[in-house]
Amino acid sequence: MIKQACTKSDIAGVSFSIYPMSDNFVDIIKDSLEEVDTSKVHLKTDDVTTTVRGKLVHIFDVTKAIFMYAANTGEHVAFQATYSLGCPGDSTGDAYMAEDENPQNMEKIKDIKQFAGSKFSLYPLGGGDYMDVIYEQIDAMKKHVTVSPSHYSTRLDGEAVAIFNGLEQVFKATVEGGSSHTVMTVSISANSPSHKGVN
Amino acid sequence: MIKQACTKSDIAGVSFSIYPMSDNFVDIIKDSLEEVDTSKVHLKTDDVTTTVRGKLVHIFDVTKAIFMYAANTGEHVAFQATYSLGCPGDSTGDAYMAEDENPQNMEKIKDIKQFAGSKFSLYPLGGGDYMDVIYEQIDAMKKHVTVSPSHYSTRLDGEAVAIFNGLEQVFKATVEGGSSHTVMTVSISANSPSHKGVN
Repeated sequence: MIKQACTKSDIAGVSFSIYPMSDNFVDIIKDSLEEVDTSKVHLKTDDVTTTVRGKLVHIFDVTKAIFMYAANTGEHVAFQATYSLGCPGDSTGDAYMAEDENPQNMEKIKDIKQFAGSKFSLYPLGGGDYMDVIYEQIDAMKKHVTVSPSHYSTRLDGEAVAIFNGLEQVFKATVEGGSSHTVMTVSISANSPSHKGVN
Repeated sequence: MIKQACTKSDIAGVSFSIYPMSDNFVDIIKDSLEEVDTSKVHLKTDDVTTTVRGKLVHIFDVTKAIFMYAANTGEHVAFQATYSLGCPGDSTGDAYMAEDENPQNMEKIKDIKQFAGSKFSLYPLGGGDYMDVIYEQIDAMKKHVTVSPSHYSTRLDGEAVAIFNGLEQVFKATVEGGSSHTVMTVSISANSPSHKGVN
């Protein structure tokens, strides 16, 4: 039986993968995961994705740091994530909701310079004026990075840290705006030989 | 102005990336794209994703074939895609809606044996009993491959061709069931050193 009961928990989560386009991909992934302080989240890796659950602030802190460390190797690294908050859910990781709001990894990565190209999509599920919510949040993104339209997503270009900060703000605003089940998908690419206009 | 008008078109589309975890990633991507007959779709690649638009049957035919060719190199290859049909949209690729329903690449790849692990999520946007639609389609997947629950997604294990066929059926059934804006995200992994119970 796959059906899961809804919970009233505010637990956020993400299912993500990091893809180093390198023969050395295993070490890059393992080293990045080891560099990051994951003490405030529930983290589980399998052969397809890694799942992180806990408070929203830590979900973004941990994924941002993992991407920054992997990209900092200089290899072409891609990151793909689905962030989610709301029904359906289960109780895995609920214990981590007692952690404080202080992001553990921010200090170590906030000054790393890393250009990235990105596409994100926001899906406020459960009905209502979901397209209005999406357009409002695309507009809010412009405070953080360069924003342009793309098919099935919105394109973001700029510093990787600013992209993650923008994504966190937009996700948080959608949740706080009353969306009962919010999903956001993101693809981020660093050090691609196809990036234009960057060294 | 990013806001796009809704269209009444039945055009389907996908924004996807293929990630070969190999120093040879550029050639693997280029060779796979070249092997595939893309004459019945609109296709555009940039530095983050590739967008394909056209009839639903061809969208799945083309993405399945690209993945099969890339995985057939034996390298660890991951595939990430967002399939979409419905508002919002624009007119790029509308000309391809006049193509017939005959998938161009099916014959060449249908017998390739390739185990894959996968996670997919279905998002029928625009409200209604969207969770019921999701659970119904997860159940329908069991005709194609091994299905198990996962956080923020449903896990599929089996032959890659069967996974893609299942995804196509589930997406099609959701659209035909009346969802006005259907989104499906998929992560597929082949030849991972972390796959269990293979070989």
